Amino acid sequence: MQDNTIADRMAPYLQLQIYAKIPVLIQGFPNFPPPQFLRQAIAEEALTESLQYTQTAGHPRLMKAASDFFEKHMGIKVDIAKEIVASSGAQSVLACVFQALLEPNDEVICFDPAFDFYRPLIEFQGAKHVGVPLKPSQLNSKASILNRFENGKIKFSKEDEWHLDYDYIESRLNARTKMIILNSPQNPIGKVFSVEELDRLADILDKHPQVIVCEDAAYHHVVFGGYQPFSYPRCITHPKLKSKTLCVTSAGKMFSATGLRIGFAMGDEKYIRGRKSAQTYLNFCLNPVLQTATAKCLEQTFDGQYFTEIRDLYIEQSTMLLKGLLESRFNLHFWVPQGGYFLVTDISDVDISEKYFKDDQDGHQLTKDFAFAYYIANEVGVVCIPCSPYFENKELGSRFVRWAICMTTETIQDACNRLK
Amino acid sequence: MQDNTIADRMAPYLQLQIYAKIPVLIQGFPNFPPPQFLRQAIAEEALTESLQYTQTAGHPRLMKAASDFFEKHMGIKVDIAKEIVASSGAQSVLACVFQALLEPNDEVICFDPAFDFYRPLIEFQGAKHVGVPLKPSQLNSKASILNRFENGKIKFSKEDEWHLDYDYIESRLNARTKMIILNSPQNPIGKVFSVEELDRLADILDKHPQVIVCEDAAYHHVVFGGYQPFSYPRCITHPKLKSKTLCVTSAGKMFSATGLRIGFAMGDEKYIRGRKSAQTYLNFCLNPVLQTATAKCLEQTFDGQYFTEIRDLYIEQSTMLLKGLLESRFNLHFWVPQGGYFLVTDISDVDISEKYFKDDQDGHQLTKDFAFAYYIANEVGVVCIPCSPYFENKELGSRFVRWAICMTTETIQDACNRLK
Repeated sequence: MQDNTIADRMAPYLQLQIYAKIPVLIQGFPNFPPPQFLRQAIAEEALTESLQYTQTAGHPRLMKAASDFFEKHMGIKVDIAKEIVASSGAQSVLACVFQALLEPNDEVICFDPAFDFYRPLIEFQGAKHVGVPLKPSQLNSKASILNRFENGKIKFSKEDEWHLDYDYIESRLNARTKMIILNSPQNPIGKVFSVEELDRLADILDKHPQVIVCEDAAYHHVVFGGYQPFSYPRCITHPKLKSKTLCVTSAGKMFSATGLRIGFAMGDEKYIRGRKSAQTYLNFCLNPVLQTATAKCLEQTFDGQYFTEIRDLYIEQSTMLLKGLLESRFNLHFWVPQGGYFLVTDISDVDISEKYFKDDQDGHQLTKDFAFAYYIANEVGVVCIPCSPYFENKELGSRFVRWAICMTTETIQDACNRLK
Repeated sequence: MQDNTIADRMAPYLQLQIYAKIPVLIQGFPNFPPPQFLRQAIAEEALTESLQYTQTAGHPRLMKAASDFFEKHMGIKVDIAKEIVASSGAQSVLACVFQALLEPNDEVICFDPAFDFYRPLIEFQGAKHVGVPLKPSQLNSKASILNRFENGKIKFSKEDEWHLDYDYIESRLNARTKMIILNSPQNPIGKVFSVEELDRLADILDKHPQVIVCEDAAYHHVVFGGYQPFSYPRCITHPKLKSKTLCVTSAGKMFSATGLRIGFAMGDEKYIRGRKSAQTYLNFCLNPVLQTATAKCLEQTFDGQYFTEIRDLYIEQSTMLLKGLLESRFNLHFWVPQGGYFLVTDISDVDISEKYFKDDQDGHQLTKDFAFAYYIANEVGVVCIPCSPYFENKELGSRFVRWAICMTTETIQDACNRLK
């Protein structure tokens, strides 16, 4: 009898290697407390708001608060009835987007490294993941990065760029290409796509009008350098891209509460209507208390001051962690991030004991990024995330590990001390 | 250019006819307030519980509370690590089950009438919905039902049964059949499958060992007659069926709070492991505050007293509504329900003005159930739900409408007065 307990599409995803042995749950989210006003809002709404089904697209108060907030801070005006929908976290937003838009055999272009949850969602629809690598302009040594510090601060510069290969993108675009996913600021490398990059992409996509842009802006409040929270080059506000863009955001990320489970999709009605329908069947609706509490928080932070402070905090933590890694005993290579929760380092020049290259459960050979992660978890007591799962090209990806900047000063300083 | 905005699988489900014009949102859930202890629990947990990612399968406290509760009241013992998972409402539980288990071209047997959300979830996986009709043993007239009242009470009897056609079920089972969905108590007819029915089904399924039973027990706390809440003939506790059953339940339904969005799947590890993996990508995790608050409520109601009271309330409301419909000016036919939130009536002998058979937006011809629903919504001010969407055989389904018993005494009495 054939195995009836797992659909073929699920078989590759039964085990999350990256989660299997590394406590990623303590790595990918802020370890400082979420704002008290969020806790307070949920507590208040719990006592008064309805606890029955709400509209599938989202509670009217949340739709209003989110669209007001995004209008002020992103400069886009959405029709509440047609162009915005809330879902159970950005993950659920993406699941509904792919469910609604992708046909079997459609192709979806992702820039590698990419958030490793895109690929399964694409493949669940019978569609095909097409990786297009981003390439670092150079490997920055400790010395070169240290030289660039001024008064304890360091800015992103040309040396930190990861480039798109436009010819390669064009070579992968064809009549089957349905979507391109652009994550900016990007997880894991912290890249923010520039105006010039979006312009060039827009020109290329002009020749392929069937391609929808899925802009994953989960980290849109955490942008460094010359950018302000929510205000940086975005597809959803780009003159040529906005009409073909679905923008995905996360209230949980915005309020440093990854367990909140409220995310948004915004875009033209023609993309949103299918997403609403997918949501009807995948989730039906969201908890109304969480929705009105989130609305309250968006109303309370409408002036943006809270997000400027959070962004400034992330700049400090990012600088502190970068310095700690520079002062570590490991021979790493670096890039200054432009935003997001993470930074990556190249570990190809680090020597790691042979024993860490063997999986301690089944003895299979591990890639260097996993060996490094186990090595420093065991011997140094610091957690980083191997990056090969973020790359289609695993060999390339195994050169990198990801470090989280969304941690308290105490945690980062402790990690820095251990890494010395 | 081909339409790129909707995947083919979604096209039939862009508009929910049943929701388009009837305020179903005020019909399918309790219009009395949820218990104050639930509001209080959410408010308390909001101030103290983590607001970051939790385990995908569910918060450990919730897994413990739910498995303790179900062990006491259902008599099953689940391994918390392997045999139970929480998801964002029973709808999301089902979405993950189908995502994890169904292959394209698999067939899934549903008993008609069936909850109208099964079919799209089945078809989204490329699988096929196979309807097997339940048939009423007879049409009960007003007089026959009135005769059966004793001291203001009425019990379910043979005359209220809807029968399975076992030969027909056998004729639809084949090597492609992957699953059979059994909803008990059933929405919309309020049927509770008997031990004899489950035994007979088990014998039939013995010949088709690849078939998984998906037991939708969303209403398992609302059972009338000789049954106690949670304790009635169930697949997950049936000696021959339990090893092949995935049981789906809803904390939101249990606590009269359909907006809570906490549901469970329980069953053998081999079915649960794929479901956990599907959930990782479709939702990632649930809000921890809602999970620990639900755990608290399960702990507080562990003795079952709360659910006995709720069940008794539903018996009263069901009796009151049934009497009101018997005393109405409409020539309806009836069945006494055995559980759940609803009862159905046959409307084939009701005369309805021609104008209600035309859709007032596009003029298309409506089936009688829709015409009746619009008619009484407009002329009587009472809401019922047309049942043809619950039937594969629309002509048969158009004989029935669904009425909600999960309403306050005031609402039901007002409806009864209007129907006189």
